Amino acid sequence: MCRRSSAAHGVEWARVADEAGLDVFGVGEHHREDFAVSSPQVVLAAAAAQTTRIRLTSTVTVLSSADPVRVFEDFATLDLISGGRAELTAGRGAYLESFPLFGQPLDRYDEYFEDRLELLLRIRDQNPVTWSGTTRAPLEEAGGWPRPFQPALPVWLAVGGTPSSAVRAGALGLPLYLAILGDPQRFAPLAELYRRSAAEAGRSPGRIGVTSHFYVEATSQGARDTFYPHYSSYIGQNMPRAGRLDRASFDSWAGPRGALFAGSTAEIVDKILWEHETLGHTRFLAEVGLGGLSQADTLRSIELLATEVLPAVRSALHLDAPLSQDKAGKGRS
Amino acid sequence: MCRRSSAAHGVEWARVADEAGLDVFGVGEHHREDFAVSSPQVVLAAAAAQTTRIRLTSTVTVLSSADPVRVFEDFATLDLISGGRAELTAGRGAYLESFPLFGQPLDRYDEYFEDRLELLLRIRDQNPVTWSGTTRAPLEEAGGWPRPFQPALPVWLAVGGTPSSAVRAGALGLPLYLAILGDPQRFAPLAELYRRSAAEAGRSPGRIGVTSHFYVEATSQGARDTFYPHYSSYIGQNMPRAGRLDRASFDSWAGPRGALFAGSTAEIVDKILWEHETLGHTRFLAEVGLGGLSQADTLRSIELLATEVLPAVRSALHLDAPLSQDKAGKGRS
Repeated sequence: MCRRSSAAHGVEWARVADEAGLDVFGVGEHHREDFAVSSPQVVLAAAAAQTTRIRLTSTVTVLSSADPVRVFEDFATLDLISGGRAELTAGRGAYLESFPLFGQPLDRYDEYFEDRLELLLRIRDQNPVTWSGTTRAPLEEAGGWPRPFQPALPVWLAVGGTPSSAVRAGALGLPLYLAILGDPQRFAPLAELYRRSAAEAGRSPGRIGVTSHFYVEATSQGARDTFYPHYSSYIGQNMPRAGRLDRASFDSWAGPRGALFAGSTAEIVDKILWEHETLGHTRFLAEVGLGGLSQADTLRSIELLATEVLPAVRSALHLDAPLSQDKAGKGRS
Repeated sequence: MCRRSSAAHGVEWARVADEAGLDVFGVGEHHREDFAVSSPQVVLAAAAAQTTRIRLTSTVTVLSSADPVRVFEDFATLDLISGGRAELTAGRGAYLESFPLFGQPLDRYDEYFEDRLELLLRIRDQNPVTWSGTTRAPLEEAGGWPRPFQPALPVWLAVGGTPSSAVRAGALGLPLYLAILGDPQRFAPLAELYRRSAAEAGRSPGRIGVTSHFYVEATSQGARDTFYPHYSSYIGQNMPRAGRLDRASFDSWAGPRGALFAGSTAEIVDKILWEHETLGHTRFLAEVGLGGLSQADTLRSIELLATEVLPAVRSALHLDAPLSQDKAGKGRS
């Protein structure tokens, strides 16, 4: 993909997902040559102007390396432009390149995230805001402008596999976002821990969202044959520790209990329902377009998710009306 | 205006300006309740998705309070999404509220701007980049991603009335942006100083852009009667030092040699041509929608600028072909 197309393609994914009836579109943040997007809010604003209904979120905003006031302003603006469709997902980031780029010391990794999450929630909920912390200049009766369209900007918390992060999300009453790359069943205790922490803090547990690498086609064999070369190249480049992904391992990851959602529409439906029984999540985010998959294949995959997978999942869960903000499509561009 | 409309209205200004044939659309940065936009890049990205031809710029980006790496990433993304239509204008900001908000000490005002401008130009022109300064963490062979669509992202320098700033712009070879609020003729020495500084640095002087408060209608009387109550309210709120703007002063500011461009299409054409003789600028940016002027009046004013003022100015200057990036419309939202 040329440089322009990767950002512009993402906007087209949002447009197709919106038209086909998905509920949410997300864009991640990376500061690397091999990912197109370092500024999710700029891509999401373009998507907002070409869509009417779909919700728009970051997946994720690397909060440790960002200024929470700036993040709030950007997403409040996105919320105004989209008529109340903005969300943001705060995370530490799966990569570390943002730390030297923005001058954060790696040995204060946890402190930076906690301090900035506290400020983000404070400026979301109070205006003017007075705050002091350890990683940023204090605020004294400072205004955070503009205010968003929604009464409160939704903030999700992204968690890899760290139990204390799930506890924090529960205690803060924030919805939880799980990026599942290994065995999905290993995440069941994390979801349980999250719900228990919320209850212990006297809060109702928020929603759980799950994200997975995704490609769907009409047939199982077709989906795997199309996707394998792209996905093995993606894994080789982004997860060098995983080693070279041979076809047998790929087929195993894509099997009924693996983390990879690559198969026929029927297989994807079964896997979403099985994972829902295990984790009780109410949002599924599909990571699409990995490994330089063609734009035509990516768009067809998004359409199949909306028109075949989503109705079947809704029907199986007896959700006759569209489940607001539920099963969802997510683009990684 | 309700909160949503002020950001969404700005996107509509861009759409109308694009369709009517103007060359550039700009959005400023303010961190105050009485201005809608704190994040120009997010509004410009939405505008990019609803336009096809018009250039998109910040007017201005308050660089002293921003992280230049983040600014570069945001505008490079905007450039990719818009197919090479992004620019940015770096300035110190006409207001000071961003300093306490982002933790910059006011007594290092000049140092912050110079240090961050140097980094912005460095990361624009080199990749990877190694840099060290006094107001931000250093960079060591760091990548700035994504790279923009254009070979080099255009960076303009905004100047109020400070001669040393004009000298800096000339020496750096950056195009100059003059915000003219007082007597336009007072800016002629600044334009001359800019050209001389460029020549002394062995550079060709860049373009000069001029911005002015703007409202046009078919007749002079109509334009002034419609605009006066809005403009006097705007001045009272934003320039309290100017005192209450009575109608006689308003009419004088809007006269043939005043700084305010409010009148008939013929008056606006004459004034642009006179100012062009005085300053030699090749871009005129009209600040529209001031003081809560209605959206209908604002859109009509933008259309008149494109369809009547611009062709007359081109004709008078013997610019038969559309003057690329020249006479321009600018929205303050």
